[in-house]
Amino acid sequence: MGKKNVIVGQSGGPTAVINASLCGVIREGLEKSGHIETVYGMVHGIEGFLEGWYMDMGKELSSEDLERLRVTPAAYLGSCRYKLPEDLSSQVYPLLFSKFQELNIGYFFYIGGNDSMDTVSKLSRYGAQKGTDIRFVGIPKTIDNDLVLTDHTPGFGSAAKYVASTVREIVLDSSVYRQKSVTIIELMGRHTGWLTAASVVARKEKMDNPALIYLPERAFSLEQFAQDVERELKRRRCVVVCVSEGIADSEGTFLCEYGDQKLASCLGKEQAEFGVTHTEQAALDNFGHKMLTGCGKVLERFVRERFGVKVRSVELNVSQRCSGMLASMTDIDEAEKAGQAGVRFALEGETGIMVSFVRRRDGKPYGLDFVPVDVNQVCNQEKKVPISWIGENGNDIKEEYVDYVLPLIQGNSALPMKDGAPDYLYRKVKFYD
Amino acid sequence: MGKKNVIVGQSGGPTAVINASLCGVIREGLEKSGHIETVYGMVHGIEGFLEGWYMDMGKELSSEDLERLRVTPAAYLGSCRYKLPEDLSSQVYPLLFSKFQELNIGYFFYIGGNDSMDTVSKLSRYGAQKGTDIRFVGIPKTIDNDLVLTDHTPGFGSAAKYVASTVREIVLDSSVYRQKSVTIIELMGRHTGWLTAASVVARKEKMDNPALIYLPERAFSLEQFAQDVERELKRRRCVVVCVSEGIADSEGTFLCEYGDQKLASCLGKEQAEFGVTHTEQAALDNFGHKMLTGCGKVLERFVRERFGVKVRSVELNVSQRCSGMLASMTDIDEAEKAGQAGVRFALEGETGIMVSFVRRRDGKPYGLDFVPVDVNQVCNQEKKVPISWIGENGNDIKEEYVDYVLPLIQGNSALPMKDGAPDYLYRKVKFYD
Repeated sequence: MGKKNVIVGQSGGPTAVINASLCGVIREGLEKSGHIETVYGMVHGIEGFLEGWYMDMGKELSSEDLERLRVTPAAYLGSCRYKLPEDLSSQVYPLLFSKFQELNIGYFFYIGGNDSMDTVSKLSRYGAQKGTDIRFVGIPKTIDNDLVLTDHTPGFGSAAKYVASTVREIVLDSSVYRQKSVTIIELMGRHTGWLTAASVVARKEKMDNPALIYLPERAFSLEQFAQDVERELKRRRCVVVCVSEGIADSEGTFLCEYGDQKLASCLGKEQAEFGVTHTEQAALDNFGHKMLTGCGKVLERFVRERFGVKVRSVELNVSQRCSGMLASMTDIDEAEKAGQAGVRFALEGETGIMVSFVRRRDGKPYGLDFVPVDVNQVCNQEKKVPISWIGENGNDIKEEYVDYVLPLIQGNSALPMKDGAPDYLYRKVKFYD
Repeated sequence: MGKKNVIVGQSGGPTAVINASLCGVIREGLEKSGHIETVYGMVHGIEGFLEGWYMDMGKELSSEDLERLRVTPAAYLGSCRYKLPEDLSSQVYPLLFSKFQELNIGYFFYIGGNDSMDTVSKLSRYGAQKGTDIRFVGIPKTIDNDLVLTDHTPGFGSAAKYVASTVREIVLDSSVYRQKSVTIIELMGRHTGWLTAASVVARKEKMDNPALIYLPERAFSLEQFAQDVERELKRRRCVVVCVSEGIADSEGTFLCEYGDQKLASCLGKEQAEFGVTHTEQAALDNFGHKMLTGCGKVLERFVRERFGVKVRSVELNVSQRCSGMLASMTDIDEAEKAGQAGVRFALEGETGIMVSFVRRRDGKPYGLDFVPVDVNQVCNQEKKVPISWIGENGNDIKEEYVDYVLPLIQGNSALPMKDGAPDYLYRKVKFYD
């Protein structure tokens, strides 16, 4: 086929390296000038593109800009959470494809997680129905590391490095006083514990804090937790506990949904002792909104009531996904290479695929190969931490995980600094207001 | 006087650079071997020392250890919050001084904030009464930057760098979607806004986010806040607001203490509309404990009710004070020099002093001199951000502050890394359990 254009978009939550993948697509696209004329970027993904928001990346960004784009966190192009209809006869598909035709698009790249792979799947299936020759490629991205058919996903390594380093610092912070204390750190991860498990790397020695680590892959029992904390409080002065936000009990109730009645019964106390009479309102704030109290706060209350020790909870927040300062250089490199590999696969004729990471098993030094996998087998699946990597009592992480994660968090990002803060690249063109 | 020994302690909350000051005292002490025999460290400050917890720093730490100590956050020696009695005839004073005599102490150094300077003040006054020749020197430390008679304090620069950089990243994170939104970032600072003000550095251009910044130095008005947010929501898609945890209204009520009645009246609504009838319980959690809801959560609820836009609040947590990864190299250098200057001043005969930072006014390049100031004039005082550095409407920070803070946040720490995480120095000797 003759020269065609590329369109690339970003979708879903931000990560530290989603822009590195964008950079990879742009650089590889501009380099393949024998086949590719122009690299367009969708602004706010499919949703913005439907409103005509796109730009010419080669004109927008100098090569110096691309270098800064590579290390800038969050989504340079803007993101969306737009789900294409299941029904391929929906009007949105011909609308989208007519816009692709207008721009002479031959290659479509979407950088994102599960939902974005769903978009790639639907577009490629619709395209196949209609016999178009546009090639649709997904570039993986998620700090959750929950995509199947790939060793890991870009964004995870940086988030894991952030968690490992920051938990180590909080462990130091928590141990300055001589009083017995419990510190509960709540980490991102609604369904899978890949990120929370990285807190095990915060230990320098086997017996260091965090003493206890709980993932959503195992049912959480408050009674078992109480026994764990009690044992650790006998063994050490400061106990640091790491939990995924999404831990739930064996009945599937999230810890963050535990009301007073539940907590009271777990504590073996009459509820009236807590000065409450309105358990129905426990999960509602005073405006009638559902309380978004994290599980860290619930466990903090539980530990305070049960053990009477100094206790605090810390919620590691959005910095887990958007800290460019603590990004892993390995992650940045791999994210960019994933974007480049996507362009190469598309030029080789692949469509309806995601770029997958295959870890080389032939020897010690860590290495990665990039291969295309069927995107239909990726979307709407979820990869969990293997139960065999979790300690028998559900409160610890085994060496298998450490061996898995260590190569992914190596190397620091070399950020351009200005006035004492990172000199990230901001988009100049706005498409609204 | 003949050869004497040094004792040094750390007190109060951790910072990223309190160990750099410890390193400065130890290095300078060991170097002045003509005057100083041994450098002892108190474990958990005065409180631990009273129990006989101290160690020989020259034996404990190799020169390689000292290099790592310099960049390790939190308090290597352990800290305490022990307040010496006002009454100098208390039994604790002769007890302490007899322990000093046992160890042949000639020089006492205490690294800390306001309360620690109070300790130095009391010990030096007691020593003067009794005619001892021990010299008492305070080395400043606090992320709050609220000590008087010094241009700034070690620990503040690193915390300010963390705030500036992290807020910039959260601004990027908050702007990936096209929906209108408000993000409220709650920063440390109960009485002063030095740290929150550093969020102004997150802007690359004058009009960038954070759009609104509120410090405790000015009375906070919810009505004015509503007007500010309304105006900004017209002007931009995403509004990022930075607030100190300690903002309070003109009657002195902390925002974080606002119950439903107050919020309802500010919103001009009947309280019953929020589905609550028990305002008395607003400030209590369901166990009858006082709710430690931050002001960020209060403002989040207010914005949601008033404007109906997407809103979230983010509390930057203990990482503000303990992030060694994002420490300012300028801060680390100055903290170490403060420790060294303290030893020099003591050898020159000074006592009852704090090491103060004086910024050179003679020309452009930033430079610092270290001078002794009377510790009695430092303790129990509080330095606030000048009102003239705050915007007229109390929602912005002026250039004077930026000029003040920029030199303090320059340079990144060169941390030793191991297995993808910072290789901090841990104390080997424990003194309890």
